[in-house]
Amino acid sequence: MTARPGHTRVGFIGLGLMGGPMAGHIQRAGFELHVYNRTRAKAEEHLARGAQWHADPASLARASDVIITIVGFPKDIEEVYFGDAGILGAAPPGAYVVDMTTSSPALARRIADAAKSRSLRALDAPVTGGDVGAQRAQLSIMVGGERADFDALEPLFRTMGSAVHQGAPGFGQHAKLTNQIAIAGTILGVSEALGYAMRAGLDGDKLLQSISRGAAGSSLLLHAGPRMLAGDFAPGFYIKHFIKDLGLALESATELGLDARGTALVKELYEKLAQTGHADEGTQALFRLFRP
Amino acid sequence: MTARPGHTRVGFIGLGLMGGPMAGHIQRAGFELHVYNRTRAKAEEHLARGAQWHADPASLARASDVIITIVGFPKDIEEVYFGDAGILGAAPPGAYVVDMTTSSPALARRIADAAKSRSLRALDAPVTGGDVGAQRAQLSIMVGGERADFDALEPLFRTMGSAVHQGAPGFGQHAKLTNQIAIAGTILGVSEALGYAMRAGLDGDKLLQSISRGAAGSSLLLHAGPRMLAGDFAPGFYIKHFIKDLGLALESATELGLDARGTALVKELYEKLAQTGHADEGTQALFRLFRP
Repeated sequence: MTARPGHTRVGFIGLGLMGGPMAGHIQRAGFELHVYNRTRAKAEEHLARGAQWHADPASLARASDVIITIVGFPKDIEEVYFGDAGILGAAPPGAYVVDMTTSSPALARRIADAAKSRSLRALDAPVTGGDVGAQRAQLSIMVGGERADFDALEPLFRTMGSAVHQGAPGFGQHAKLTNQIAIAGTILGVSEALGYAMRAGLDGDKLLQSISRGAAGSSLLLHAGPRMLAGDFAPGFYIKHFIKDLGLALESATELGLDARGTALVKELYEKLAQTGHADEGTQALFRLFRP
Repeated sequence: MTARPGHTRVGFIGLGLMGGPMAGHIQRAGFELHVYNRTRAKAEEHLARGAQWHADPASLARASDVIITIVGFPKDIEEVYFGDAGILGAAPPGAYVVDMTTSSPALARRIADAAKSRSLRALDAPVTGGDVGAQRAQLSIMVGGERADFDALEPLFRTMGSAVHQGAPGFGQHAKLTNQIAIAGTILGVSEALGYAMRAGLDGDKLLQSISRGAAGSSLLLHAGPRMLAGDFAPGFYIKHFIKDLGLALESATELGLDARGTALVKELYEKLAQTGHADEGTQALFRLFRP
């Protein structure tokens, strides 16, 4: 099987900032779309274009060849997959279940095992690129699971961005957590550096002109840096979600015998920010702890 | 005055991995070159092309309109500028003194003050870009001092890369230390992330394909990352020199009231590496502490 518009029925659970536009791309590519979301209002745009509403994940699963989820926290994933009205008890044999939530590799493996015992095909496929990447269909999708299952769904992934098969079940999550660990250290470096620069009285534009293309250069320095300097802490990616991701990363790191001290420090700093009322700001608000 | 080939006599002190090629570019651009170095052998290439050798900094200074230094540690700078056979006691009134060593903003201001009282013009002008940037004349040069003095020497800087006037005396050093602080956090993030990835069993190429162009992307992930994964710790930039720079950064950060905890952690990790015999490896050897 290869996913094809007009043939493959796609069920999509989780129409938030990320899932909303992602489901929209799948629908516009010509796939029959089935949707479920805790808040029905978020599905209105998709329903107006002909998507079918379902009252629970089980009903959606029964009507779909591919079931995609992107739902927030691990407990939400557990509910949606293993709950009474969950996917795994309802999906027809041979169906694909694809969790695109950032989650733990261990939970991804657990879903894959449960899926296999029910003759379902599971992929973990978390993304990077943020809400803008979701809107522009420019997400980077990191996929764990059987290679053949990845190949079958590649046309579907292509409607949302570009996908790379990272390996066995859980490896999509491993790649995503690697990404979050790299971001943690980098955003700490950028925050401290710009805190230093502002205290020293340097001019932000001139500074970035000198340092952004060399060894200190990073996507975060280039894009989050100017927002830090301008005191713009509006969320692109929420601090509260990053704390969740860093928790997953540290948990998995511990299992792998890695002492990720930098990541632990960054999580601690973000928790401090969350405790003082900044959980709903963007991750660039780490700069609050370093600016003059 | 504007520096011009055929008119401006340039004295260059410190013909190491960085200074050697930098002086070479100045000479090839047509400037009369005077050289001094602790080890005379390193000047041979320049002397063969017609540079004049001097037995000490004072002799070089007396023969030069612009005196450039790039010499290693703050104590070396002190000796070269303030010592018995130093630059400041010998340079003719109106001459330019330009320290391109990575140094402390406080020492840069001290040199600028001493220069001013002797009717000399001082700039601090540290660089980024490494030995490769020096060889290719693609350095980023961050300059502190009087704007008019920067403008006068801009043609000289242009032979080595591109220069930006960052502000008053010491501001070139401030910009460089900002750069080093950003590198510290970023290289920690990259090291921990790739340590996680390798322990998880991810494929390095596929991983970088997924994450190097997004928010986790950085020059270090792209260039140092593959060397980390390959176990290639050959020096581009020495750990022992980075420890020096991070010490300068933390000293200056403390003066500015900044608690640079990430930078402090990274310095501590590098010191641990230096104490166990890795001081002469490249900074990407931080990965030793995180790989499986």
